[in-house]
Amino acid sequence: MNILSPDELAAALRRIGAERYHNLHPFHKRLHSGQCSIDEVRAWALNRYCYQRIIPFKDAAVLARMDDVELRRVWRQRIVDHDGEIGDAPEGGLRRWLALTDGLGLDRAYVMSLEGALPAVRFACDAYVNFVSQKTLLEAIASSLTELFSPQIISERVSGMLQHYDFVDESVLRYFGHRLDQAPRDAEFALDYVTTHARTPETQRAALQALEFKCGMLWCQLDAIEHVYVNGNPFPGAWRPGLGMAARS
Amino acid sequence: MNILSPDELAAALRRIGAERYHNLHPFHKRLHSGQCSIDEVRAWALNRYCYQRIIPFKDAAVLARMDDVELRRVWRQRIVDHDGEIGDAPEGGLRRWLALTDGLGLDRAYVMSLEGALPAVRFACDAYVNFVSQKTLLEAIASSLTELFSPQIISERVSGMLQHYDFVDESVLRYFGHRLDQAPRDAEFALDYVTTHARTPETQRAALQALEFKCGMLWCQLDAIEHVYVNGNPFPGAWRPGLGMAARS
Repeated sequence: MNILSPDELAAALRRIGAERYHNLHPFHKRLHSGQCSIDEVRAWALNRYCYQRIIPFKDAAVLARMDDVELRRVWRQRIVDHDGEIGDAPEGGLRRWLALTDGLGLDRAYVMSLEGALPAVRFACDAYVNFVSQKTLLEAIASSLTELFSPQIISERVSGMLQHYDFVDESVLRYFGHRLDQAPRDAEFALDYVTTHARTPETQRAALQALEFKCGMLWCQLDAIEHVYVNGNPFPGAWRPGLGMAARS
Repeated sequence: MNILSPDELAAALRRIGAERYHNLHPFHKRLHSGQCSIDEVRAWALNRYCYQRIIPFKDAAVLARMDDVELRRVWRQRIVDHDGEIGDAPEGGLRRWLALTDGLGLDRAYVMSLEGALPAVRFACDAYVNFVSQKTLLEAIASSLTELFSPQIISERVSGMLQHYDFVDESVLRYFGHRLDQAPRDAEFALDYVTTHARTPETQRAALQALEFKCGMLWCQLDAIEHVYVNGNPFPGAWRPGLGMAARS
């Protein structure tokens, strides 16, 4: 691989998204077009909580590797976005996600226990935390670049879900509204960092592979959910419809 | 959970296998009954190499946590079985597995690169290494107890594959013949260790959960293979038929 200009590297990163980002996954098409049963949406929200849960771990692991106070000040905001401000705005992305699982009738403690989550989803999430802890800082930051592609999927998701499902409303989907502001800000910063710091063929290849890793990590979660809950292949010990529901008040 | 006698604990461990071990997975039934295409068998062997590859890592991580020379002497044999003796018998389980992928026409360097392996399979294997590194020694040893259930699946596999597929013979399946001797010896030792050392409700529960973890880790690998290669949902960037074949001599 020859060395790429920053613009060429940015274009190569975007091509990975165009080929591998999970907006292309059949389960997302199904979800957004109203073909999912409420139990399929529950399975998705319950499993996707595993991913929401590890985002602050992942960002803290990245933060712990940054030997530059300015970089840390910027990156820290991601943890604030997920965990909420101390004191005045105690919600944050993680609790907004739980508002969705609440809205779907799932018991919050059951969701948070991860007991019903599919092993493949848990392993993928753990792999992401390990990746950013063990690879170079450049690769850790490059793996966050799926944010470049998320505004489109989020817009499709919110409008599609509101239109097709009477069991969701804007209040339970509020997680996504916040991400529409946060993701482009984060992605722009990370793209600038990666195209500035990856200036050898080796580091450019590593950055591209980091984004491929991340796309695979997202995609395989949907494969697992689709295989078990759409195609009807029960997973021993995992959530099944009827389990883990909140008591009706 | 009340405390179980050693026999009750052994029975509870065996029940987990009877409910969750991957001999119950539809892909294994398909494989053993001759319904797989050669490309499905290739996909399985190529992906399963990820698991073969990490077995010595896993056993070395367990060994590194044993503060008892006698225990280490016993456990060390597992690494010898997989890596081969130095000098006089340079084969070992890992290379016997590669004899199978060779026999299926796959390029050995491609298989060993893991390039074409499914992310879900790689993440599951990494999760196993992390599990035995991070949990208690008791849990690490308990997670090896799937060996209790493997002789049956291996017998079914070897006889089924020899009967149904003209592209395998006894020579490429020699990995399994060796495991038929090794697995019962290993499982007996581990079962004795676990039933002797798990003498509180908490440690007994941990041992049972460790075996559930291991069963899930094996099952989700077959789910991923089945979803992509049997049900025809291509995974971006992963092996597909035609890729990674050895040059014909």
